[in-house]
Amino acid sequence: MAFTVRFPIRFDHVDHARLVYFPRFFGFCHDAFDDFFGAELGLSYAQFIESRQVGFPVVHAESDFKQPFRFGDLSRLEMETLKVGTGSATHRYRFYLGDQSLVRAEVRIITAAVQMEPFGPTVVPDEVRAAFDRHLAQTA
Amino acid sequence: MAFTVRFPIRFDHVDHARLVYFPRFFGFCHDAFDDFFGAELGLSYAQFIESRQVGFPVVHAESDFKQPFRFGDLSRLEMETLKVGTGSATHRYRFYLGDQSLVRAEVRIITAAVQMEPFGPTVVPDEVRAAFDRHLAQTA
Amino acid sequence: MAFTVRFPIRFDHVDHARLVYFPRFFGFCHDAFDDFFGAELGLSYAQFIESRQVGFPVVHAESDFKQPFRFGDLSRLEMETLKVGTGSATHRYRFYLGDQSLVRAEVRIITAAVQMEPFGPTVVPDEVRAAFDRHLAQTA
Amino acid sequence: MAFTVRFPIRFDHVDHARLVYFPRFFGFCHDAFDDFFGAELGLSYAQFIESRQVGFPVVHAESDFKQPFRFGDLSRLEMETLKVGTGSATHRYRFYLGDQSLVRAEVRIITAAVQMEPFGPTVVPDEVRAAFDRHLAQTA
Repeated sequence: MAFTVRFPIRFDHVDHARLVYFPRFFGFCHDAFDDFFGAELGLSYAQFIESRQVGFPVVHAESDFKQPFRFGDLSRLEMETLKVGTGSATHRYRFYLGDQSLVRAEVRIITAAVQMEPFGPTVVPDEVRAAFDRHLAQTA
Repeated sequence: MAFTVRFPIRFDHVDHARLVYFPRFFGFCHDAFDDFFGAELGLSYAQFIESRQVGFPVVHAESDFKQPFRFGDLSRLEMETLKVGTGSATHRYRFYLGDQSLVRAEVRIITAAVQMEPFGPTVVPDEVRAAFDRHLAQTA
Repeated sequence: MAFTVRFPIRFDHVDHARLVYFPRFFGFCHDAFDDFFGAELGLSYAQFIESRQVGFPVVHAESDFKQPFRFGDLSRLEMETLKVGTGSATHRYRFYLGDQSLVRAEVRIITAAVQMEPFGPTVVPDEVRAAFDRHLAQTA
Repeated sequence: MAFTVRFPIRFDHVDHARLVYFPRFFGFCHDAFDDFFGAELGLSYAQFIESRQVGFPVVHAESDFKQPFRFGDLSRLEMETLKVGTGSATHRYRFYLGDQSLVRAEVRIITAAVQMEPFGPTVVPDEVRAAFDRHLAQTA
């Protein structure tokens, strides 16, 4: 089952074409990833990084942009886990307008687990893996 | 009485100093102004612009930065009206951390009412003036 | 042969990790696409859109992030054409540090030609196709 | 004599009104401050912070917005020093379109000198003061 966030498209999210500037979609996904920690792990992503000394930098990101968003639109963003590996995870993010069912943009992001001291790759912590697994996508 | 919004400081709101990048504070104020319309006028700022063909561009903005914000902080932003003139309005925005009472940043923004067709200055519409007046600051 | 731009990493391009925030890379590519028009077509992208009433919205974007950039780094960005179709084009963008040869991030972006009036898909104009073709990648 | 930078207005610098989003002007000023170090002090602002362990956070910023900028405009930004105190400095930034003489936006920013270890206020270093003094405004 997807983890869902809703947010308004702001005055400056759009560009000269008056449509959401495409790099913004990746930022919206990162914000949802941030919110996911607060909702699913009992501590914010900031607190997680600070206390566990582990973070999840993005190593790959891709997106298909199908329908635009405009200033004032209410966006619904659904985040699902596609795969959790030993040291990385793949999530899918689908953007919808309000309560509609048409996917307007679909993003896939691969993050790698990284420890701070000494800096380098590490395994996805169990508590994070469990949270990711609770939101596995039904379909690829 | 102030109009209040709360929001988290995001991963990319901070800069190389790991503190919120100062121009962001002005953007947070604009988002609050946007939310104000939705909450106080019964239609979003986007809908207001579209239906009334009137907008409120910023003609002056100033801010004192007193204490920083960091990634993961929960910010409380209180918006108050300092003055409503014939064709412009002045608002004060105060940033706080969570439920604390220490002002971390204080912003003043003057907006001018502008109509779209023909493009030019206009008077602050009554419904907007009434909403602004409901949130007059007690003290300058 | 690649179209090359160079630019400094700014104070606010980085995030809490003090590394360039990953959505920024896509924005840097869009800026290079903008510069490409000015350098290769004799009019800026803004002028092109205005005079030809044709634009190139992004329909797909993907990136592999290999090595980070930090505040103060001088980035070299090389843009090449991978493919020009009837109504779309695929470009590759590779990010390097200064004059180094190690690819730090590699982005692929597909843009579609769109006309404004009536709004809808169109063919890639000849002058644009010619400019894209002058920068075809040697290797896929 | 003013320190001058020139830069194009990008596709995403503008907002729903298709005019540069007002917080962006403050960011442009910070970029010019960054460029000033590279041009006037022989090392970039990033290198300065790293080697001297001194930075210049913004404690006050204000701006009057007089005429807008649009996507594709070439902006000329002139930075001058209004005052250098013991531990702070005030700069004025004026935005122009191309080679025009009409001021489109005027920004004043006060920065405070801060040392990293131990973190706290410090005096403006002599080399920085000298560079600021070389660009004193003729008029307040």
